[in-house]
Amino acid sequence: MGNKIRLGILGGGGDSLIGVVHRIASNMFDRYELVGGCFNPNEEENKSFANRIGVPLNRVYVSFDVLIEEELKLPVEERMEVISVLTPNFLHFPMAKKLLEKGFNVICEKPLTTTHAEALELEAIQKEKQTVFAVTYTYTGYPMVRQMKDMIRRGVLGTIQKVDLQYYQGWINPVIHKPEERAKVWRLDPKKGGLSCCIGDIGTHAFDMLEYVTGMEVKKLLADLNYLYEDNPLDLDGTVLIRMSEYCKGVIRASQIATAEENNFTVQIYGSEGSLKWRQENPNELVHLTEGLPMQVLKPGHDYLSDFSLDSSKIPPGHPEGIFDSMGNIYNGVAKALRNEVHDEGAFPTLHDGVRGMLFIEKVLDSNANGNTWVDL
Amino acid sequence: MGNKIRLGILGGGGDSLIGVVHRIASNMFDRYELVGGCFNPNEEENKSFANRIGVPLNRVYVSFDVLIEEELKLPVEERMEVISVLTPNFLHFPMAKKLLEKGFNVICEKPLTTTHAEALELEAIQKEKQTVFAVTYTYTGYPMVRQMKDMIRRGVLGTIQKVDLQYYQGWINPVIHKPEERAKVWRLDPKKGGLSCCIGDIGTHAFDMLEYVTGMEVKKLLADLNYLYEDNPLDLDGTVLIRMSEYCKGVIRASQIATAEENNFTVQIYGSEGSLKWRQENPNELVHLTEGLPMQVLKPGHDYLSDFSLDSSKIPPGHPEGIFDSMGNIYNGVAKALRNEVHDEGAFPTLHDGVRGMLFIEKVLDSNANGNTWVDL
Amino acid sequence: MGNKIRLGILGGGGDSLIGVVHRIASNMFDRYELVGGCFNPNEEENKSFANRIGVPLNRVYVSFDVLIEEELKLPVEERMEVISVLTPNFLHFPMAKKLLEKGFNVICEKPLTTTHAEALELEAIQKEKQTVFAVTYTYTGYPMVRQMKDMIRRGVLGTIQKVDLQYYQGWINPVIHKPEERAKVWRLDPKKGGLSCCIGDIGTHAFDMLEYVTGMEVKKLLADLNYLYEDNPLDLDGTVLIRMSEYCKGVIRASQIATAEENNFTVQIYGSEGSLKWRQENPNELVHLTEGLPMQVLKPGHDYLSDFSLDSSKIPPGHPEGIFDSMGNIYNGVAKALRNEVHDEGAFPTLHDGVRGMLFIEKVLDSNANGNTWVDL
Amino acid sequence: MGNKIRLGILGGGGDSLIGVVHRIASNMFDRYELVGGCFNPNEEENKSFANRIGVPLNRVYVSFDVLIEEELKLPVEERMEVISVLTPNFLHFPMAKKLLEKGFNVICEKPLTTTHAEALELEAIQKEKQTVFAVTYTYTGYPMVRQMKDMIRRGVLGTIQKVDLQYYQGWINPVIHKPEERAKVWRLDPKKGGLSCCIGDIGTHAFDMLEYVTGMEVKKLLADLNYLYEDNPLDLDGTVLIRMSEYCKGVIRASQIATAEENNFTVQIYGSEGSLKWRQENPNELVHLTEGLPMQVLKPGHDYLSDFSLDSSKIPPGHPEGIFDSMGNIYNGVAKALRNEVHDEGAFPTLHDGVRGMLFIEKVLDSNANGNTWVDL
Repeated sequence: MGNKIRLGILGGGGDSLIGVVHRIASNMFDRYELVGGCFNPNEEENKSFANRIGVPLNRVYVSFDVLIEEELKLPVEERMEVISVLTPNFLHFPMAKKLLEKGFNVICEKPLTTTHAEALELEAIQKEKQTVFAVTYTYTGYPMVRQMKDMIRRGVLGTIQKVDLQYYQGWINPVIHKPEERAKVWRLDPKKGGLSCCIGDIGTHAFDMLEYVTGMEVKKLLADLNYLYEDNPLDLDGTVLIRMSEYCKGVIRASQIATAEENNFTVQIYGSEGSLKWRQENPNELVHLTEGLPMQVLKPGHDYLSDFSLDSSKIPPGHPEGIFDSMGNIYNGVAKALRNEVHDEGAFPTLHDGVRGMLFIEKVLDSNANGNTWVDL
Repeated sequence: MGNKIRLGILGGGGDSLIGVVHRIASNMFDRYELVGGCFNPNEEENKSFANRIGVPLNRVYVSFDVLIEEELKLPVEERMEVISVLTPNFLHFPMAKKLLEKGFNVICEKPLTTTHAEALELEAIQKEKQTVFAVTYTYTGYPMVRQMKDMIRRGVLGTIQKVDLQYYQGWINPVIHKPEERAKVWRLDPKKGGLSCCIGDIGTHAFDMLEYVTGMEVKKLLADLNYLYEDNPLDLDGTVLIRMSEYCKGVIRASQIATAEENNFTVQIYGSEGSLKWRQENPNELVHLTEGLPMQVLKPGHDYLSDFSLDSSKIPPGHPEGIFDSMGNIYNGVAKALRNEVHDEGAFPTLHDGVRGMLFIEKVLDSNANGNTWVDL
Repeated sequence: MGNKIRLGILGGGGDSLIGVVHRIASNMFDRYELVGGCFNPNEEENKSFANRIGVPLNRVYVSFDVLIEEELKLPVEERMEVISVLTPNFLHFPMAKKLLEKGFNVICEKPLTTTHAEALELEAIQKEKQTVFAVTYTYTGYPMVRQMKDMIRRGVLGTIQKVDLQYYQGWINPVIHKPEERAKVWRLDPKKGGLSCCIGDIGTHAFDMLEYVTGMEVKKLLADLNYLYEDNPLDLDGTVLIRMSEYCKGVIRASQIATAEENNFTVQIYGSEGSLKWRQENPNELVHLTEGLPMQVLKPGHDYLSDFSLDSSKIPPGHPEGIFDSMGNIYNGVAKALRNEVHDEGAFPTLHDGVRGMLFIEKVLDSNANGNTWVDL
Repeated sequence: MGNKIRLGILGGGGDSLIGVVHRIASNMFDRYELVGGCFNPNEEENKSFANRIGVPLNRVYVSFDVLIEEELKLPVEERMEVISVLTPNFLHFPMAKKLLEKGFNVICEKPLTTTHAEALELEAIQKEKQTVFAVTYTYTGYPMVRQMKDMIRRGVLGTIQKVDLQYYQGWINPVIHKPEERAKVWRLDPKKGGLSCCIGDIGTHAFDMLEYVTGMEVKKLLADLNYLYEDNPLDLDGTVLIRMSEYCKGVIRASQIATAEENNFTVQIYGSEGSLKWRQENPNELVHLTEGLPMQVLKPGHDYLSDFSLDSSKIPPGHPEGIFDSMGNIYNGVAKALRNEVHDEGAFPTLHDGVRGMLFIEKVLDSNANGNTWVDL
């Protein structure tokens, strides 16, 4: 089948939402062919799912380990070139590690691992192996996010002096107020949900977006988390003071008890020469403010955009693209890297972005545990 | 490959925008497999394109006629089950006709044909053959459009008393004001562009949307078209007075000289019990007005929506879906019809919708030519 | 009291909404002093109202005729300089006529008269008397409307090629569907409401706005009105095709059965070089579209605006002003004219605007009665 | 002049913006008569200003002290009943103190004083004197703010669990980046501008709004301020972590270096049963989110609103009111208190609100100076 990239998928079977997103995204630019995988630990379901989505059963494997073993037996030109890891969070690390060690390219869902130490371990291996490794911070694929990154890179905003990101959802509110109900939510069980709920799920998206669009690193933070009830072990809400430098300050705000909010992720970046504002729920508008000029609203597909943004929308202005298209752009970025094509530095979020995300989670928890004090990143 | 629907495509090769949309849409629900087609009349380009998008060359045919001939030789269980017609407009009729006669199911781009008479001919054949035939009025696939249709069907708006649709673009403005430039625009050449430009391209979308969401038929119209220059043979802009019944009046407004508008398609339906308003450029919000109550804004994916709408979005609220997803819903509707699954009456726009669209174009031109007088549909 | 303009008011007593608006508007720029009037035909209510709002009783008159008689006895430097006519519509003409004849300046609510003939009569007298006469098309006072007018005047939009105005309300819907209820609505009784309901009330606002912002005249129109029920004598809704010139076409849409709409008045003007869009319910944003540039949103109080617009907002950007402020700007314009100060040509709507408005109403009714045919203005 | 409230004004002369706002506001409900004042320390300008705005010169005084002295000589039924203090901030305290001591009712601009101690002193006197004392936190007069207050009071949101307020302006950005320019800005000179710039000017508005709409008190805060340059002595930007109770946390964000923002003041209140969101730049929309229901947008003037909100708009829905109207509602509230009419508890911001505001400023500065630590209020 021509020169398509041979893709394998781990997890994402059944009704997995993230599975649908990755499959559609990989198809968008006609660059990938899904040649096999292990979608489900249950053998029967694994096969029937593969059958339903049209993947030949000969490369549908009973386990991750068998997949590795069998694929390595295939000649390089038939072997899976890149493998998407869509399994539960705690499996990301062992799978990614083995894939890296065996020389596979990887597309891994976020959070990259369960601890920062694990993430650093992956980074060390990748440096040695030099494979392509993407972490799917999905929102970085939107054309107007890429336009933000490009404008800031070109200095359109001057020196960044203030940053403000919000990621508000309300989905935990309906289950949090009754003790028996909240006890049953897996996401609030540290054994299943990990160290953090709100910061781990969505705070990291905001953190990654901040570093992605500004090209700067967060240097210090001070966090205040909310758990709402004494018996609730994981954070539901947090406000994180941020220092990008001594005089570039800001805030990341994340909540899953912002009642009835859907997925209200906003970015506001203020510089000495202008400002940019973007809202995920209306992703095709980018507001650009400049002192003394009318407010400008940039939209996808126009010649006035950067090539990086234009390359991230598929049809003419006025035809809304959405979250699937955003993920599609990330897959397209990975494809370019795999095929050694020229691509923008931000074409896909990297393993390093995943490492930073894990560091952020741990430092936020540290700061909160230490009485809301400053910690360095 | 399991039980996937075997899809063939005519046209849509090279950089065709509509080709991308159909391919992505057909993949969205893991229900179709693109098994072959004839993407380009140039044999070399046809093959290289097929290669690039990963379609096996053995079913990439040198011409439409060869495709028909060869596919018919295949056993029914291998033969293309449905064929998407994405060729230039004047080819829709001959291709759709032959496909119908040979018993193929068809997905055809709009406009269905170049005349109403041709459209009626197709309809007559289809009635006999009883195949599935969809016309891709893409915008009808949006979840909030389907919610509109369902709410009106359930009587939420009471008796419809006023309708108002707008479809404004600006793309012709940059080329229309210089005689030598406008003479070169194929869309304004009747030999290539057909009877109508603005009404044929976008007025029909508004007309179809009106009949789709209300479930009512337009009975009469009076049209006023604008050509801007005496030497310009095709309409650039038109306002069409509408009668749905003696006391249900309205207007369809379409323009391609609404300078710098992108794809500003809006629907406003007013009934005795409430109103609905929707805007294509922000497709995930549906405004519902009721006397004496706060304005309500409905969004995709919520339990308060109809099943028909819920079935048309793939992920939880707050994750924007767009025009590709809208087309995906239409392909999914066709898939249900092909597999004899229960599906909503509006799951995809039908051949009859295409016939109505051609009637609309002809009647608008008649009314305008007759000095802006009323004509019956 | 210094050099303040001595203002008298006719009507507007009790709970009159329009009375409040005019009183607040006249105070906004510290230029008027309300010295007297006749607020109510009932003597007792007239006095108690005057007392409540703090007008000295010595110039509160029992009738319009007495007011004229007594004021004329006063020396010119004490006499009311301008009189606002806020009485029921049918009284506008006789009052305005007498005021003009006696040399008073007038601020008259719309509609100016009940027929176009009456309006012409007033215009003839005013030409002779050379007094200041304003007709309060309130919406023309908004700073962003004035910005529109100025930008079009300066040629920013190039040649205007399409115009589209909408004025949708829903207030008649709750009363129209029951025969006994609609029979009781005074606005639908031709004896009280005049020749037209919807077109007379709000269609004229749209018509005036169109001629105000473009500086062009409507040359021809074709109207389609809706009455919803056979026994309802006055129009509830209308769509009016417009010709500003042979190739500048457009539409005015007005409705009072657009269920649950509040006061949804929008203006869209498209020219060869750009477009402007404005919405009364969010009056502090003016959208400027230009091919190839990001959408621009202009807001009041910025240096990038015209002097005419800047002069129409009182405080810095970001502090919303509203409908009272809009009327205040009209009063300020009249004040400038009365004091012979330099003022913009559009500083207030003139008697001629009122005359045009009456012509529009009559021509719309003619066109509709003649089977929706073109009529010249 | 009937029973109008006799109003005096201190300051607000010449081109004072706040003077215009107070004069228009006091006129809106026909309840006040401006009988005198001292508008300007310069005698000539004082008189010519009084003359221009039509205030009789016999009660235009050369100084504040003379005003007090002379007014006290007048019989109570002629004496100014309430005096608006619009002078520079450092004069608020001595003037308000003397006015209180002499038994005058006061309307005072914010900030109430320059220190919390002064504010407490005023409060002590007022408790003794029992006069009416309003502090003009102007934004609390908007009808939709009052609707928020009322809905929260009635329990519509359940238990408040998260609050988030933003007040972003950009006006200091153009002057801050050049040392010689920033040295000349009086607002950044501690001798003239007081202890704080950003927090004092606008952070207090957000703080007051929070306590106003929730009816709750902020218990603790932790602040992080930004000065941008080492030689700049006053804060330009600050983020303040908030505790309303152990488990009701939140954030107040204020900035005057949010480049090219106008007056972007937003309020987001999240409770266990729903949420409310409001934005000052579009003040006539109040968003109400409830889990499982469509988003609701409430607008002024509708029967579904509380009486308190309805009483704060003057005309029917769809006619925007603005910041002048908001201040008018505060003056109307004061009028009701002065006339012993029944009025809502939130009819005007009180002296106590002013005291809280001063406490907030001092505590924010303390927290920031102490290395961003928690301080109690």
